[in-house]
Formats: sequence, C-alpha cells, structure tokens
Amino acid sequence: MGNLSAPGFIDLPPRTAKPRSRGLTHVLDKGLTLPDASAHVEAAAPYIDIWKLGWGTAYLDPAVCDKVNLLATHAILACVGGTLLEIAWAQGKAAECLAWAADAGFPAVEVSNGVVGMPPLEKRRLIAAAAERFTVLAEVGDKDPHAPVSPARWSHEMLSDLEAGATWVIAEGRESGTVGLYGPDGAVREPLFEALVDAVGVASLIFEAPRKDQQAWFIRTLGSNVSLGNVVPGDILGLEALRLGLRADTAMLNLADLDSAASAP
Amino acid sequence: MGNLSAPGFIDLPPRTAKPRSRGLTHVLDKGLTLPDASAHVEAAAPYIDIWKLGWGTAYLDPAVCDKVNLLATHAILACVGGTLLEIAWAQGKAAECLAWAADAGFPAVEVSNGVVGMPPLEKRRLIAAAAERFTVLAEVGDKDPHAPVSPARWSHEMLSDLEAGATWVIAEGRESGTVGLYGPDGAVREPLFEALVDAVGVASLIFEAPRKDQQAWFIRTLGSNVSLGNVVPGDILGLEALRLGLRADTAMLNLADLDSAASAP
Amino acid sequence: MGNLSAPGFIDLPPRTAKPRSRGLTHVLDKGLTLPDASAHVEAAAPYIDIWKLGWGTAYLDPAVCDKVNLLATHAILACVGGTLLEIAWAQGKAAECLAWAADAGFPAVEVSNGVVGMPPLEKRRLIAAAAERFTVLAEVGDKDPHAPVSPARWSHEMLSDLEAGATWVIAEGRESGTVGLYGPDGAVREPLFEALVDAVGVASLIFEAPRKDQQAWFIRTLGSNVSLGNVVPGDILGLEALRLGLRADTAMLNLADLDSAASAP
Repeated sequence: MGNLSAPGFIDLPPRTAKPRSRGLTHVLDKGLTLPDASAHVEAAAPYIDIWKLGWGTAYLDPAVCDKVNLLATHAILACVGGTLLEIAWAQGKAAECLAWAADAGFPAVEVSNGVVGMPPLEKRRLIAAAAERFTVLAEVGDKDPHAPVSPARWSHEMLSDLEAGATWVIAEGRESGTVGLYGPDGAVREPLFEALVDAVGVASLIFEAPRKDQQAWFIRTLGSNVSLGNVVPGDILGLEALRLGLRADTAMLNLADLDSAASAP
Repeated sequence: MGNLSAPGFIDLPPRTAKPRSRGLTHVLDKGLTLPDASAHVEAAAPYIDIWKLGWGTAYLDPAVCDKVNLLATHAILACVGGTLLEIAWAQGKAAECLAWAADAGFPAVEVSNGVVGMPPLEKRRLIAAAAERFTVLAEVGDKDPHAPVSPARWSHEMLSDLEAGATWVIAEGRESGTVGLYGPDGAVREPLFEALVDAVGVASLIFEAPRKDQQAWFIRTLGSNVSLGNVVPGDILGLEALRLGLRADTAMLNLADLDSAASAP
Repeated sequence: MGNLSAPGFIDLPPRTAKPRSRGLTHVLDKGLTLPDASAHVEAAAPYIDIWKLGWGTAYLDPAVCDKVNLLATHAILACVGGTLLEIAWAQGKAAECLAWAADAGFPAVEVSNGVVGMPPLEKRRLIAAAAERFTVLAEVGDKDPHAPVSPARWSHEMLSDLEAGATWVIAEGRESGTVGLYGPDGAVREPLFEALVDAVGVASLIFEAPRKDQQAWFIRTLGSNVSLGNVVPGDILGLEALRLGLRADTAMLNLADLDSAASAP
C-alpha cells in the first residue's frame, strides 16, 4: 500500500503496508500546531505508523483531543511521551496519568525510565498496568549522555519489558541522536546494536534515529523495513524515499542491476 | 493562566501569566508565512509574549500588517528586528523607519547597535525617541563572533539603555547561539552571565537562547520564569514543557519529592 | 519587482526581477505538504524562481500534480530532483521517467550523475533528450564526500552540459552543504569556486548553498544577484533579506555611505 500511489516505472524494494508490525515510521511531534499536523497526516498517512506527542507537550496542548482524533482517522497510533508518565509516577500519580490518556483517546503510551531512575520492577508493573488498556511501547536507555551503556543490561531489560506486555521496545537516541544508541558524534554504537538485534530480534525493535545519516545507516544495514523512531514530521516523505532507495544515500537498493543499465533515450 | 488548560494531576512549578514582566518567551520569526504564524499563535498564545520579525523581513513582507494585527488579537507584542532600524539610521532614515513601524501597527521595536557600530550616545537618543511611541527592547552585544565581550561594558550599556527608556534589555546570542552570551560551542559565558544578573537584575533581562540546551541551562539556573529570546516558533510548546519540568532536561523541577514517590498502579 | 512591495525608505542594492536569468533562488522541497508549500509560495512568489522536489519525493507524493500546478500559477519552475532520473536511467527507464514528468506537468528537470556514475557521454545524451521538452538544470559533482574534486573536470563538464542543452549548471553542495563545493566544515572550496566562475561565468551557475553562512559568503563575494540553490523553504524571506543587505551578515551592502549617516531623530 505504501507504494500504491507511485507511478510504477521504477522497480522498488518490497515495503510493508499498514497496519505494519515491521518497518514502522514513528514520528516525534515536538509541539506541532493542529493545522500543521493535519497537513502532514493527510499528505503521508500511508507512511506513518506511530505519532508520539513528545515529553509533556500533550499535557499542555488544549487541542490534544483533536490531534488524537485526527491521528485515529488516519490509522496512526497516537502515543503519550514517556517523560510525562515518569514524572506522574514520581509524584504518585501514574494511575491518574493513564486515566487521563484514556480519556483523551490515546491508544498507545510509552513507558520509559530514563529520567527518574524508576527501578526495573516498577517499570514492569507499570507496563503491565498500562497494557490492560493501551498498546505499550517500552523505552530502554538513559537520557544522560554520561550514563554507562551496557549491551547486556539493555537486552535483558528489553526482553523483560516485552514479557511484561510491551508490543515494541524502543532503543533510546533522544531527539538529538547523540545519546544511548549513539556516541556523542551521532555514530551508531555497533556492539550495542548487534547485541540488541541478536537478543531481542528486529521485529520487536524500534530504533530512535532522528538524523538522516542514522536513518540511512539502519536502512543499508537492515533493509527498507527497519522500524525507526523520533522521525521529524518534515522528514516523513524524505525517509520513505530513503527506505525505497530514492535518495543518494540508499540508492544502491535500486541499483543491483547497474551492469545491465540501458542507455539514455 | 499558562497552566489553566493543563489537566491538573501533576504538581508543576509556579509560572507567571500574561501580561508577564518576567518569564517571557520572545519568539524569532525568520519569515514565517501568515497561515503558519496564525497556527502557532492560535495553538500557544498563552505561552508567547513577544514576537520579533527578524532582521529586515518585516520590510519585505507584503502581509506584515496582517501579521501584526494577528499578534495584537492574541495579546502578543509584535516587534521590529533591530537590524532594520540600524540600517535605516545609518542611511539617515531612523525617523522614517519609526514612522513606518507605527503605521504598520507595531507596538514594540528593538534598538540594537551590533551591526553598524552606532555610538552609545546615539543609541540612547534612539531609544528615547522610540520610547515615545513604542515599547522598546534594547539589545546589547556585537554580531561579530570575534568581537571582545566585556561584562563591565555590557552591564554599563544595559543600565544606560534602561535609563534611556528601554523596558527590557536583550543579551545577544544571535539565532545561532554561538556569539555574545555564548562561546563558539554554544556554552554560556558564565562570568558575563553573572555580571549581568548582578548589575542589571533578572527582571529586566531577556537572554537570547535559541538552543534547547541553552534554554534548559537558564531554567535550571534561574527557574521557570526566566525570560528567553530568539525562540524558534516550532519550539514554543517544547520550551513551555521545559519551563514546567516536563522534559528530561529540567524534570528535576518536578522531582523534589522523589523519595516519597508512590509505586505503580 | 522583487522590491516593489517594500516601503521604500531604505536605499537597497539593485535586484533582478522575475523572470530572472541571474540572481535566482532555487528552493529544495524535501517533502513539504501542499498547504505548507502553498503558504510559502503565496507569501514569497516574487523571491522564488525554481522549486525542486528533492530526490524521489515527487515519485511518492500523491498530490504531486497539485503542487506542480500551484507553482506554475506563481510563475515558479517546478523541477524533478536528479536522483530520480539517475535511478530510472540505471534501470533503463529514463524515457519513462521523462514521460511521467511531462504528464505531471513539470516544466523543468535536473540531470545529474552524482549517484550512479553515469558516463559523461550518457549525461550529455540525456540532457539533449530532456531539453527537447524541458528546461534542463545539469548538476555537477559527486554526492560522496570522499570523491576527489577537480576544478578542471567540473569546469569541463559544466561547459559540456551547457553545450548539450542545459540552461543552468548547478554546483553540488547537497542539502548538508558539506560536499563538493564545500569542505567537510561547510567552507567554500575557493580554488574550485574561482575556476568555475572563470570558465563557466556567473550567469550560467547556480551554487547550492543551504546554510546561511554560505549564502552570505556568495552574496558578499558576487553581490545580491548570485544564483543560489538548495534553499530551505523556511529561509526564503531570510535569504531575500540577506540579498538586500537587511541582515547583519550582509549589511555592508547598505552601509557604503556610513560616514554620512545622520544622527537619530
């Protein structure tokens, strides 16, 4: 379906269609206005699977219900950012936060523990409680660039989060792409990446990848149907072009038969 | 008022409401279209105090009067960028520039001297002339990254500008956040910052802070109600989330009682 | 015409008007929604000459015909990104790609060879074929940051492309501004720049210049009416302010007579 509207004269790599379990595009909304969100969604709904209202912006946006409805209309999962739930939990208000998210119509929530140092057992209980009403995305990784990054601990926590009821696990990269999954220069920490793929499997993993070079790296490494997160709304169509090998950085996906290339008309 | 629409289950730090004298959010508009400006303003008017039409964009925008009217409707001070007035002054047309700004309906102007090397006495005369009709924001600091930065000179000029009739003084950081108030890497020049706070006082100061790490630094250092300038329109809701401790970088504002955190539902 | 709507109290440098052969602003659309594109075009049509639908985004956008029509209404040349034609060519579908572009209403196409290593003779044949129906922009330069950059080879290829039927030649900088025309830090490769200006002439050259510091460098070096490409839609009005000396980085264009500056009112 993703390619249905394309004119068809170019052979493109196979691409999953909605509702996708792999090859998801997960968008980070840092506070988009409703008309702007609406324009993005109407232009590119087949290419958008999950739409996260980042941090606590959902809590401050008087039009939050309208945005959630808009996303539902286009078969996009609206998701509350994990920081809000972490802060609510730290204030003893996790149940109130989940009730509010349900009232506002959110079908999905993110459960993270990168801010308040929630113990693993608490995180699992919160995932289980949330999974009764929501699709749960569990995030693993600290927000602090100086925190140690242990492939074994991340793998263990992800498996545990999935067992507790999460549908996908998200590898933390923040909106900067310089933390957790990445070194300070934005390069993928390859031993961490390999450990996660081995232990957890690609099907359950969403990699936060806000930068084009990072998106291209994952697509070159794992193919068109890798699930990528924290995508900027303005990059949605550009990312789909990357996935389909229609940009220089991933054009090799469409050039396998270069030797047999015909000449110009 | 800023928090009025929030659902209320999280304890947030106190926040000033419009019309604010402290805790202002001052937005830099680099040439937004009218529909886009309108969407931002309708979505987030309680969080926007001043809206600067950067540099000379106001001079080139045929829809400038409509934008100024839109901002007035939402109780946001529309402000002419300082560079335009500097160039007009250098061509002997400062009076014409102020007359045009009044005709276009601007309630505020910025008076700066970072471009043309206007002598301090001239700057004060221009502030006094502008203050007869406008709210005046006086900017201090050179646009040139190689210009020397003297805490004593900045403090003296700011006090002098306030005495001449400016309502607020702005510490220069440019839209890049790598000049004046900041080193080339974007880190705050702390001795300069401390000198300005001591000499001028937080209530009269607006710090240009275009980058999230800079905004978070000021909020952690001076609290939610620090006045911040050159905020990108797309960051307005995100900045309010930072001010209210609803993002990882400032979450400590809401975690004082972490020891008493309740467990998950 | 570009300056017609300006209030007129400031002396500005002379500026060409549409349809321009020099001083073009060439915009890179990375996948803008139709309402957003429409707002930009309605706000700033006199300042926009060419609008490139980047890479393969045009191929994926179901509203591509509406966007092309919108641009035509505002006398802006809609242009297909070169990567799409390169991939089509590599799959032996160059003729189909040009037929599709004509059907969609595009008046212009870009012919490049930075992705698939198309031999120079093939590029010239493709330019000649495209020029029968389209205004052709030929791009020179590799997308690979590690590719060697030869002033002699670039000059030769540009002259050859013009001879084959291209109306303008584009010096590659990518959307990052760190490749081809630029070193990895974004600084202009001056020997390359000088060789191109000498061999090809400014009138036929469009310099990809996505960053403000790069745009300012070209304007300071070649004046207001240099043709600049890969401009981000949000920077259109800001670039016009740069061209007209209404921003700090180029204010010297309006300050020639600083000695005779009058005093404040």
